[in-house]
Amino acid sequence: MFNYQHGGNLKKAIEKYGIPSEKIIDFSANINPLGFSSKIKETVTKNLNQLSHYPDPECREAREEISGYFKIDYSNIILGNGSTELIYLIVQTLKPKKALIPVPTFSEYERALSNNNVPIEFCKSEEELEFSLSINKIISQLKGIDLVFLCNPNNPTGTFLPRQELLILVKEIQRRKIFLVIDEAFIDLQEEESLIKEVKNYDYLIILRSLTKFYSLPGLRLGFTVADSKFIKKLEKQKIPWSVNCLAQLVIKDLFQDEAFIYKSKQLILQEKQFLYNELSKIQGLKVYKPSANFIFLKLLGNIFSQGLIDHLAKKGILIRDCSNFRGLEKGKFIRIAVRKHKENIKLLKELKMILTKK
Amino acid sequence: MFNYQHGGNLKKAIEKYGIPSEKIIDFSANINPLGFSSKIKETVTKNLNQLSHYPDPECREAREEISGYFKIDYSNIILGNGSTELIYLIVQTLKPKKALIPVPTFSEYERALSNNNVPIEFCKSEEELEFSLSINKIISQLKGIDLVFLCNPNNPTGTFLPRQELLILVKEIQRRKIFLVIDEAFIDLQEEESLIKEVKNYDYLIILRSLTKFYSLPGLRLGFTVADSKFIKKLEKQKIPWSVNCLAQLVIKDLFQDEAFIYKSKQLILQEKQFLYNELSKIQGLKVYKPSANFIFLKLLGNIFSQGLIDHLAKKGILIRDCSNFRGLEKGKFIRIAVRKHKENIKLLKELKMILTKK
Repeated sequence: MFNYQHGGNLKKAIEKYGIPSEKIIDFSANINPLGFSSKIKETVTKNLNQLSHYPDPECREAREEISGYFKIDYSNIILGNGSTELIYLIVQTLKPKKALIPVPTFSEYERALSNNNVPIEFCKSEEELEFSLSINKIISQLKGIDLVFLCNPNNPTGTFLPRQELLILVKEIQRRKIFLVIDEAFIDLQEEESLIKEVKNYDYLIILRSLTKFYSLPGLRLGFTVADSKFIKKLEKQKIPWSVNCLAQLVIKDLFQDEAFIYKSKQLILQEKQFLYNELSKIQGLKVYKPSANFIFLKLLGNIFSQGLIDHLAKKGILIRDCSNFRGLEKGKFIRIAVRKHKENIKLLKELKMILTKK
Repeated sequence: MFNYQHGGNLKKAIEKYGIPSEKIIDFSANINPLGFSSKIKETVTKNLNQLSHYPDPECREAREEISGYFKIDYSNIILGNGSTELIYLIVQTLKPKKALIPVPTFSEYERALSNNNVPIEFCKSEEELEFSLSINKIISQLKGIDLVFLCNPNNPTGTFLPRQELLILVKEIQRRKIFLVIDEAFIDLQEEESLIKEVKNYDYLIILRSLTKFYSLPGLRLGFTVADSKFIKKLEKQKIPWSVNCLAQLVIKDLFQDEAFIYKSKQLILQEKQFLYNELSKIQGLKVYKPSANFIFLKLLGNIFSQGLIDHLAKKGILIRDCSNFRGLEKGKFIRIAVRKHKENIKLLKELKMILTKK
C-alpha cells in the first residue's frame, strides 16, 4: 500500500463511506472553493489537440509567464509536476547529509528525505506556544545540518513567520552555507510577504510555489521552484523530462490574466476565513488556532476524538482532514478544515454544533 | 540547459526554424498520426471540473481498466507520468550496483542510472550485423550486473526480439537474480509478442508500457509498469504522490473501448510502414533498416550528413529525428522517421528524393 495519506482523497472517501461524489463537500483539501477560472476551461477545450504532442521539456512559455508575473528572472525558475515533484528533485539533487524539519508540517519533506536515506532532525514546535515557530530554536539546531525544509504559512497549523523574521534565518543559513527550502504553497493571500524575490540575494535560499491550490487545479499538477540559476541548472540535469503535461503548461497564462477571478477569490477566502474562525470559536469543545491561509487548524477538547467526528461528518457528505498522521501532533485530537463558500461553511458549522453539543 | 534531446520538441523547432506550428509535419516523434480517439475529447471536455480535485494517488480505477484489458492482476500494476517516470522510479527503488544496457537505445535508461550514480556497462550491437541484438552476447556480459534495461522493439534501430528468444534471457536473469526491465513502449502492433503476462512466472522481470504513443497522447503523460506484486509495493513506497494527473487517469477507459480506432490505427500504420519502407528503399543514398514498430531507422550513405538534411527538411515544415546523440551510433549518419499518414509520407518521400538526387 501507498504509505502516504493526505486530504482530498475523494475516491477513498467515496469507497469508504459510500456517498456519491456529487454530494461531497471537501473541506479536507485546501483548494480555492470557487473552482478554476472559466478561461481555463475555454483554453483547454480549444487546445486539446496539443495532447498529441510531447510537452516542452523546458516549459519555456510557461516559465516566461511566471517570470513576467512574479518579476523574477527566467533563469531562476523551474516547473514541476506539482511542487511535490520539486521536493523530491531538490533532495535527489542536493543529496544532503542531514536535514532539519520543523514539525508538525507537510509530510512529503520527511518522506522525500527518508526515501533517499537522509537522516532527519526535527524541530518540534510546542502546543503550549500555539505551535508557533521559533527562528532561534531552528538556528540552535543547525549544527551538522545542510538542508532545512520550512513551510510558511505552515500546513497544518496555520502559523506564519513574517518576512522580516524569516530573513534573519535566511541570512544565517547563507552565512553557514546551509540550503533552506521555504514552501510557500499557501502564501497567495499575502503575496507581499513572499521571499520569492530574495533568491537573487541569497544563493542558499530555495522557494517552492504551488499553482494548484489558490488556482484550484490540483488535478492538473503544477508547481514551481525559484532559486539561484546555477542551482536551477543542477535541478534541470536531474529532472525527468516531460513531467509537466502540456495542458498544465498551457493554462499558466490564463491563471495570471484573470484578475477578476483572483480578486473575487481573495475576497471570498479572506471573508469566509474570518467568518469560520469566529463561528468555530463559539463552539464548545473546539480550540481554534488563528489561521493565516485558506484553512483552519483545530483541536478537539475533552472526550471528543477525530475519527468519530470524521466518520459522522463523512456520512453527511462533509470531508475534513484528520491530522493524526502529522508527526508532532497528539493522535486523534487535531483536525484541519479548508475555507469554503459561505453556504458550505454554514452547513459544516451546523453539523459540528450538533455533534459537539450532543456529547 | 537540459541535457536531454529527444524527438517531438516542436517548440524548439518552431524557434529554430521559424515555421508556424500548423505547418509542421512531425516525423521526429513516434506517435500515431491519426491523433487520439474522439471519445477522449468528449470525456475530457465533459469532466474538466475534476481538475479541481487531487488525482487518486493510487490510480485505482485506471489500474482496474488496465487489469481488465490486459488480463493481468491489479496488484502487478503501477501507473506513472509516462513510462519515463517509471524508469527513474525503478532505478531509485532498486539502487543497483551495476547495470547493463544494450545500445544504441533510448537514452533515458542511461540518464536515470547516471543521475543515480550507478555504473553502467554497455552491450553494443554491431552495424555489420544490422544492429541486431544477441541474447548470447547480453548473457555473456551479466557478471556483476544486477539490472538490465532492454527496449523491444528497440528505439531507434527498430530491431525486435521475438518472445521465444527473449524468454531464454528471462530464464537466465531469473536464475541469476538479476532484474530485467523490458521496455515495450512500441509493441502495440504485435501485442501477442508481449511478455506482460510472464511477470507472474518471473519475479525479476519488469515490463514498461506506454499509453501515449499508439494512443497519441504524449502531452498527457501516461505509462505503466507490470511486475511482481511485492516489487510494485516497493515502487509505490518510493513514488511521489499524484504524479499521474486526473485527466490521464480518466481517459484510460476510452482508450481501450474504442475498438474501431484501434483497428483503424493498426491498419494504417502497418500499411504505411510497408509503403514507406518500400519507397525509401528505392532512394539512392539511403540504407533502410527493416522496421518492426511505427518508425523507420535509416543510414545516410556517401557524403550526406544528418544536420544538412534535417535543416533542409525543417525549412519545408518536415521534422525528422537526428540519431547523432544515441550512444553507439556514428554521428551525423543516422536518422529516424515515424510512420505517418499516406499524404504526409508522400510529401516526405518527395522532398527526400529531391535533396538526395541533387547531391
